[in-house]
Amino acid sequence: MKNFADRLADAIEAKNSRVVVGIDPRLGRLPPALRERAAAGGGDPLERAAEVVAEFARGIIDAVAHAAAAVKPQAAFYELFAAAGWRALADTAAYARERGLLVIGDVKRGDIGSTAEAYAQALLGETRVGDAQIASLAFDAVTVNPYLGSDGVRPFIDAAAARGKGVFVLVKTSNRSSRELQDLPVGDALVFERLADLVSEWGAGLIGERGYSAVGAVVGATHPDALAALRRRMPHTPFLIPGYGAQGGGAADAAPGFDDRGLGAVVNSSRGIIFAYERGGDDDWRAAAAAAAERMRDDINRAIGVGS
Amino acid sequence: MKNFADRLADAIEAKNSRVVVGIDPRLGRLPPALRERAAAGGGDPLERAAEVVAEFARGIIDAVAHAAAAVKPQAAFYELFAAAGWRALADTAAYARERGLLVIGDVKRGDIGSTAEAYAQALLGETRVGDAQIASLAFDAVTVNPYLGSDGVRPFIDAAAARGKGVFVLVKTSNRSSRELQDLPVGDALVFERLADLVSEWGAGLIGERGYSAVGAVVGATHPDALAALRRRMPHTPFLIPGYGAQGGGAADAAPGFDDRGLGAVVNSSRGIIFAYERGGDDDWRAAAAAAAERMRDDINRAIGVGS
Repeated sequence: MKNFADRLADAIEAKNSRVVVGIDPRLGRLPPALRERAAAGGGDPLERAAEVVAEFARGIIDAVAHAAAAVKPQAAFYELFAAAGWRALADTAAYARERGLLVIGDVKRGDIGSTAEAYAQALLGETRVGDAQIASLAFDAVTVNPYLGSDGVRPFIDAAAARGKGVFVLVKTSNRSSRELQDLPVGDALVFERLADLVSEWGAGLIGERGYSAVGAVVGATHPDALAALRRRMPHTPFLIPGYGAQGGGAADAAPGFDDRGLGAVVNSSRGIIFAYERGGDDDWRAAAAAAAERMRDDINRAIGVGS
Repeated sequence: MKNFADRLADAIEAKNSRVVVGIDPRLGRLPPALRERAAAGGGDPLERAAEVVAEFARGIIDAVAHAAAAVKPQAAFYELFAAAGWRALADTAAYARERGLLVIGDVKRGDIGSTAEAYAQALLGETRVGDAQIASLAFDAVTVNPYLGSDGVRPFIDAAAARGKGVFVLVKTSNRSSRELQDLPVGDALVFERLADLVSEWGAGLIGERGYSAVGAVVGATHPDALAALRRRMPHTPFLIPGYGAQGGGAADAAPGFDDRGLGAVVNSSRGIIFAYERGGDDDWRAAAAAAAERMRDDINRAIGVGS
């Protein structure tokens, strides 16, 4: 079974793309025709909205499949539609895999012991009921919150390791208030740097053929100095870099996350790609998303000196 | 609209109970008759299992309603059953409210900006679809992970404040590895103490008539010294105290979380109550849970010197 980090490297090279498209299908920003179908019509409004969200996600996936290494559906925008939303999330994940994209479930779960095991089974593995084993979501990787320490992360890592899947642990997030906890000084380091050392340890046994571990880290493009320092501090940890585009980070800010082979990181953009139609230039929202993903792909490749 | 902390104090006094029953319906530990019904039978195994889980939760709620102030369903054990699990979770929350119990959704979510808003709408508020507003889960409070800082917590607090609901922020969790991050030394304090100060600030504008805020903290019974110190450090913050029972904490360990009116905290037990039937003594799992909840209620009331 192939290591997740190797699968990620393969995807990067096959597409020559380090782009992750974040699927954050906020109902109020969907293209007007879809928004109207969700708002009006018969039946259960949550079912109706979830169907529209799933259709939008499929359209985005079709549009960006050639230009992205992975997609990252954000669970919050599906949980809004309760059970129907959960079905739509499963649909998005399954459709993206069919289209040859890795799927990173942005769930930011974190709990302890058998509770974390249950989350890991639900999100990375299978649910057992009697003799049946059902993979209801089965993301290729998930994001995990480390505040509870290794008890909260290990069950996800174990579930991932057993199935060639991955985990991205929040280390230094892209938002402004990330400094409140993550930047507190601990001796001669900061909290997130101490955490980075833990993440490296957690992933040490899961390093693939390309030198990266199945245990990755989330590090925001909005902190380029921290990103460069973390690249040195955790040389075997692949990075998932949010904060490009709408959050203010550019390709040059994300570049320090990569090694000289152009591996070691993927960069996420959500709104900047999926709602590119809002900025005009293309009437078709799918075509606008495709063009935005291609521009981002080329922008990053240029910044790190990889040919198009 | 009544402040959540006042609603919690009312519930404590009405029942003379500081008990929260954690509903962690692990399929493999359900009473044999239920487990067998989930394992065998027609239809979709996830639907079957989710129905059994919902039925078990209703039975537990009926059994403990007189002896508990609140219940705390754990989302992980419902997410295992995908869309069907989400429906079961909504059923558990609605049924507990019907039976006069406050419902704390143990979801440990944490994300930023509009993503956190979406979670807060899904879990504490309403989902808008066109002209419809649907409260699909509508917990009375949720647990929130603070690693992202105030950006990640504020949207939950705002949603809670608008609806008389509450938030419990993870501060010092009950598990062993909580020390890895939470106990790192920052100057003359520890990370979780610095966080405690932030939580106090976040809650300062939401203090109810009884002196407690709608913004609470999760502090484990497994760290009684920390609990006592935090009670002094954050006098207006209600505590949700896990770690009683199966995790090794006793009533004496939880006692420092209370003020001299017997307010300021609730103590959670999950497995020790809901799976009390496993320890024998009562053939009926509901009766065993009722007896365990009553014992815990009395145990805590004794430890803090409140009459039964």
